[in-house]
Amino acid sequence: MSLVLDPAAQDLLFREARTANTFTDEPVTDEQVQAIYDLVKYGPTAFNQTPLRITLVRSAEARERLVAHMAEGNRAKTATAPLVAILSADNEFHEELPTLFPAFPQAKDAFFGERVVRENSAALNAALQAAYFIIGVRAAGLAAGPMTGVDLEGVRKEFLDDDHTPLMVVNIGRPGENASYPRSPRLAYEQVVTTV
Amino acid sequence: MSLVLDPAAQDLLFREARTANTFTDEPVTDEQVQAIYDLVKYGPTAFNQTPLRITLVRSAEARERLVAHMAEGNRAKTATAPLVAILSADNEFHEELPTLFPAFPQAKDAFFGERVVRENSAALNAALQAAYFIIGVRAAGLAAGPMTGVDLEGVRKEFLDDDHTPLMVVNIGRPGENASYPRSPRLAYEQVVTTV
Repeated sequence: MSLVLDPAAQDLLFREARTANTFTDEPVTDEQVQAIYDLVKYGPTAFNQTPLRITLVRSAEARERLVAHMAEGNRAKTATAPLVAILSADNEFHEELPTLFPAFPQAKDAFFGERVVRENSAALNAALQAAYFIIGVRAAGLAAGPMTGVDLEGVRKEFLDDDHTPLMVVNIGRPGENASYPRSPRLAYEQVVTTV
Repeated sequence: MSLVLDPAAQDLLFREARTANTFTDEPVTDEQVQAIYDLVKYGPTAFNQTPLRITLVRSAEARERLVAHMAEGNRAKTATAPLVAILSADNEFHEELPTLFPAFPQAKDAFFGERVVRENSAALNAALQAAYFIIGVRAAGLAAGPMTGVDLEGVRKEFLDDDHTPLMVVNIGRPGENASYPRSPRLAYEQVVTTV
């Protein structure tokens, strides 16, 4: 066994954790979201750019507006999950770089002066942070239901602005009855890893 | 404290883990990489598409070819790290979907028949898996040094093919002397999370 991470933590985060499609009524509090953020904010990104932004959809009115942009199969669970979060990338993250990366404050203009460069970098690094966030939800003993079956452009117009690119919508809560499908197979190591 | 993950695991994966820029000589074995993969392969992706592919650059000759494509500031550490991995997205992941997502084998053609759709989906989902991989490296008690300061198109031509899009290069090993910069500040919760 080559891992040093405690087996219970392995189970909590990866082996027994599952994407949930149903949830109990138990609320997910702002304190839980803050605890998740205060853990996963340390995950690495290029130049510490941390472009992920999180929109918690809590009001009934906002939830209804979001559900209208979900793919048919994602509507019921998004309507009833205790908490729903829109994860997006801030394409203007460079404004914070002099604070976020004090070792080289010039990075703001030297590397990220062009919008298309920022968009590409924000897309990759916000996706890394989305994965950290999903791990963080599991670290809080909750289940995540990440979804890309969403009219993302519709979500952008409804909830964000031109400077933010939505990546996915995540349902969050405690798993309900029949919350998950049977575990699907994974690729073998030899199908994924090659050596040169 | 709203997290259920053991504090030692929180430290190992997020709070005390740091990106490493120097490494000891201790080798990173294939058994360690296999243990990392066997943990993080369970991280969620859309339709269980798991598009991440990993190229371990082990031979001196291959390492030299890779270093030539790194940005100046990334060359020395990439030349000397115990292990270097190229992480890429397989844009033809859909070929495996009937096996990977047996609940809906039609997804291969119904959702992923078009190459541009596959490329976008693979880019996002391989990035999620890259983050799971970084977490997995830390779960093995090792440090990761992910880098996007790379001529990725050059790396593609040198090591991959048109069906694979490189995302980043990751140095892996035990941290050496002065391995990390001081921890940079993170955005406050209120700067990242909004509620509607």
